Amino acid sequence: MPPWRGPWAWADRLGNAATTRLLIECPDARGVVARVATLIADTGGNILDADQHTDPDTRRFFMRVEFEPSPGQPASAFESAFAPLAGELSITHRLRWAGAPPRRVAVLCSTETHCLSDLLWRSANGEFAGGEVSLVLSNHETGRSLAEQAGVPFVHEPIGADGKPAQEARVLEALGSAGADLVVLARYMQILSPGAVARYPARIVNIHHSFLPAFAGARPYHQAFERGVKLIGATSHYVTDELDEGPIIAQQTARVSHRDAVAEMVRKGRDLERVVLADAVRLHLDDRVLVSGRRTVVFR
Amino acid sequence: MPPWRGPWAWADRLGNAATTRLLIECPDARGVVARVATLIADTGGNILDADQHTDPDTRRFFMRVEFEPSPGQPASAFESAFAPLAGELSITHRLRWAGAPPRRVAVLCSTETHCLSDLLWRSANGEFAGGEVSLVLSNHETGRSLAEQAGVPFVHEPIGADGKPAQEARVLEALGSAGADLVVLARYMQILSPGAVARYPARIVNIHHSFLPAFAGARPYHQAFERGVKLIGATSHYVTDELDEGPIIAQQTARVSHRDAVAEMVRKGRDLERVVLADAVRLHLDDRVLVSGRRTVVFR
Amino acid sequence: MPPWRGPWAWADRLGNAATTRLLIECPDARGVVARVATLIADTGGNILDADQHTDPDTRRFFMRVEFEPSPGQPASAFESAFAPLAGELSITHRLRWAGAPPRRVAVLCSTETHCLSDLLWRSANGEFAGGEVSLVLSNHETGRSLAEQAGVPFVHEPIGADGKPAQEARVLEALGSAGADLVVLARYMQILSPGAVARYPARIVNIHHSFLPAFAGARPYHQAFERGVKLIGATSHYVTDELDEGPIIAQQTARVSHRDAVAEMVRKGRDLERVVLADAVRLHLDDRVLVSGRRTVVFR
Amino acid sequence: MPPWRGPWAWADRLGNAATTRLLIECPDARGVVARVATLIADTGGNILDADQHTDPDTRRFFMRVEFEPSPGQPASAFESAFAPLAGELSITHRLRWAGAPPRRVAVLCSTETHCLSDLLWRSANGEFAGGEVSLVLSNHETGRSLAEQAGVPFVHEPIGADGKPAQEARVLEALGSAGADLVVLARYMQILSPGAVARYPARIVNIHHSFLPAFAGARPYHQAFERGVKLIGATSHYVTDELDEGPIIAQQTARVSHRDAVAEMVRKGRDLERVVLADAVRLHLDDRVLVSGRRTVVFR
Repeated sequence: MPPWRGPWAWADRLGNAATTRLLIECPDARGVVARVATLIADTGGNILDADQHTDPDTRRFFMRVEFEPSPGQPASAFESAFAPLAGELSITHRLRWAGAPPRRVAVLCSTETHCLSDLLWRSANGEFAGGEVSLVLSNHETGRSLAEQAGVPFVHEPIGADGKPAQEARVLEALGSAGADLVVLARYMQILSPGAVARYPARIVNIHHSFLPAFAGARPYHQAFERGVKLIGATSHYVTDELDEGPIIAQQTARVSHRDAVAEMVRKGRDLERVVLADAVRLHLDDRVLVSGRRTVVFR
Repeated sequence: MPPWRGPWAWADRLGNAATTRLLIECPDARGVVARVATLIADTGGNILDADQHTDPDTRRFFMRVEFEPSPGQPASAFESAFAPLAGELSITHRLRWAGAPPRRVAVLCSTETHCLSDLLWRSANGEFAGGEVSLVLSNHETGRSLAEQAGVPFVHEPIGADGKPAQEARVLEALGSAGADLVVLARYMQILSPGAVARYPARIVNIHHSFLPAFAGARPYHQAFERGVKLIGATSHYVTDELDEGPIIAQQTARVSHRDAVAEMVRKGRDLERVVLADAVRLHLDDRVLVSGRRTVVFR
Repeated sequence: MPPWRGPWAWADRLGNAATTRLLIECPDARGVVARVATLIADTGGNILDADQHTDPDTRRFFMRVEFEPSPGQPASAFESAFAPLAGELSITHRLRWAGAPPRRVAVLCSTETHCLSDLLWRSANGEFAGGEVSLVLSNHETGRSLAEQAGVPFVHEPIGADGKPAQEARVLEALGSAGADLVVLARYMQILSPGAVARYPARIVNIHHSFLPAFAGARPYHQAFERGVKLIGATSHYVTDELDEGPIIAQQTARVSHRDAVAEMVRKGRDLERVVLADAVRLHLDDRVLVSGRRTVVFR
Repeated sequence: MPPWRGPWAWADRLGNAATTRLLIECPDARGVVARVATLIADTGGNILDADQHTDPDTRRFFMRVEFEPSPGQPASAFESAFAPLAGELSITHRLRWAGAPPRRVAVLCSTETHCLSDLLWRSANGEFAGGEVSLVLSNHETGRSLAEQAGVPFVHEPIGADGKPAQEARVLEALGSAGADLVVLARYMQILSPGAVARYPARIVNIHHSFLPAFAGARPYHQAFERGVKLIGATSHYVTDELDEGPIIAQQTARVSHRDAVAEMVRKGRDLERVVLADAVRLHLDDRVLVSGRRTVVFR
């Protein structure tokens, strides 16, 4: 643990570790909330927070429940009790049991370190209650000292003479060895293959800049500058096979003007990227994001 | 109905009229969600949206449920079924039944009409699904033509020789005759007496400007200008006996700079007031606001 | 003048009428600021506010000067004094002399009236110091009563049996008769021909919704909803021959979530459109916008 | 120089180092802009950017000019040429000559490191074109490793048995030895004495949380939570003898809701503090802030 952790660090984390989160998706049906809530009550749980949503188009039902389980009850007992209901109502679910160890987060980056630096500080100071950065991996050496200062292992996997697929294989192996639960692309400038993406469905988070209107092609900030936009934005999303088209988790914009040269727009863009990526990572680790098709339901 | 209603007006309203809203407050207890959800299901209702919150300090539990009741079922049947549960769990509740007529909104104003004009447009165009402006009352004549053009009755109640209490009595009588459910102070520059406030608990909405830091006393925009603030704000709240200190419903800020003279700050303040007041009115009419002590729980 | 004008209306306007605005564009050259400022001083003017900008790419120089001219001096005297300097430095300029009558603004709309209603209120209450709405024109009747209540002439020009070009010809004639200086497309759902656009270069302002990412084709709010965007936006711009691609004047965004059905996103979009369009109109009438190629320089 | 500097670091800095900034305050008078601009032109300078402002109340005139001086010209030559004009027009001025070494920034902190970490990253990556963090000083050890990793000297000055005034004397000595130009209070939880403040007039920047309404006394986040505010804010300002009442440089707000426990509000507050403090430091180092009485003029 690095010595520069602030005084509040563990207070937050302890507060969250005692709750269980249950995420549900199923076809809309009369009585789902009642059935699920009753089952939790019958197993001795106490609901602290619950959020539901029914998509008006698809009639899919989404629910997030945060509850205190009966003291001493194991997750397996709840799973057994829940299984018949899940079967009956065609429920897909995800359960994160109280007291589970923090999830292991791997951060991938290249030469830019603004997001990496920010994520390491937040992780060390307990801002990600449900996880912690436990690996930094890069195709460059730039991030090494930041990682090592934070006490996080750093792996350097450059693209070598054996080509990009070989490098990706080594990256996947490193992620596997580190037991990564969540992969964060913090300005990692390599495109992952469909095979790599398939290993971590809805568990790879990326950040990219966004503009109104959108600009295709290279050097988007230059294009935005030439077009005289008055806002720039950043979007974080889950990675799918469609480049930068995965389900959106968080977005934010900032004002720019004719006085902002391209370098200044890039700087403001970095400020946005830091905040929006950290927001997405926290929402994911708090189990607040459900993916449905091309969209997310984010229970803030 | 004024002829300038836009084409979307009724579409919104019809969408909402078919749902019932149940708002609940009670001491936190194991199984509340399950009990309430089960009761709704048992009476043939289908939950569309539900939001819960437990205040960590007071251990009070808050819930908003939006559901489709069993076709043809009257509100009274649900109330009868709900009464025993309410008694057992010490639940305070509010029920707004599907198909109930729109609530009657009375707008009080003085000489400034920016909020009045905005509220009339929104009401006529169906933006307030759960209510409509049915009375405009002022101690000045300024708002008369705006109201009459919108087809809304206008009542002029100046402060006469018989003094302010007599005027307030006439105002209360006019509100009573109009069957006002909600009273909106849209820059009404008179302070209501405790007696008047007590008639409409958590049903009088006010708007006022806000600053960081706050400025006490007269001419706050001048004070804010002299202090060189970089942000101005507006706050909407329920009226209580403490002037401008009631539970906050919505707030928003806008940037200002040294280039903004006082008149320009006032103009930006008007823009904020319009949006923040309309936001609060809509949240109230959508039954999304619960008051608990000095605070609100707003289920957006 | 409608009777619902607020008490502050003329105060703002009088404050602004006494100043002259000079807008300049020229190739960047040593000493331009000094030469222009000296000329203003030599003719007895007193600079109140000045803004300069040099585009780092094109090396074009932009300047806005607001000054009090020598009392009694006519604009023509200044123009004569300025002409040699303008010739020498290849300056393109625009002069708006103190005390000039307010510019005549024509608002074009179709069936949606949220922007029209807003612009009429602001115009009547003196928020547009440099102009006033003096004509409302529509291909529908929807806006008539709003215009007439505000004491503004309303012209109905439907698309008749003689086709769209004939209708546009009548629109242009009406604009000409009204002496329109600025044309505001306030949700006018007809595309202007290149000929019409050419008559009002950088004097037609439009508003449209914007998204990150952008969505081409019909029903953009439905597309944005299906994509699960977390922000929606609005952009105001000058109209050019490229549809919705003209120089941007102002932009703003608002948050949305999975809870916002399409109708709710449309409503939030209307709120943005009102504010962003009014912002652009005010900036234009305050002579704060210079167009350079595909971009604007906006001296706020 | 730490190895985790991003690839853009020096590009920004070099771009800015070639310009001179002249800041002026004087009584409003006819022809000031012309006289100053002419003097710059006469000494061979080329104005790149200029901003003026006249305070309508006090009739004080403010100006910021950024220019390329004549190649090879020393600052002293310009000062000599400028002196007679400054005398004649009662101008107070500040000159920052092109090519001057970066200013030395001292960061003071206590146990919280979020602002320190952020400032160190920005400094190392060239975001502060006009300065760099060259000292970290704290009454605790918490920030030491962050500073040392960034290659910045760290001084620990605890409050010892000899009391607070003695500690402050050692702090001032350390600042003096380090040649500090700017002192940044990055959550430094000690109040500086009037004597210390007087040594660095308008050169000590502080950050604090702000609320609408404001809350006096201890534990403001708890008070804000109990009041149910919907926005929290942060304000950066120059330190004067009035605690937290100095001229405001930058402010920003963020949304909160009933779902945000105090710990979550504190976390969002930290995010604001980071951004708002860095903004103020950059504006100061870009010579964009002029102080006039209790206010600032910030030429963004």
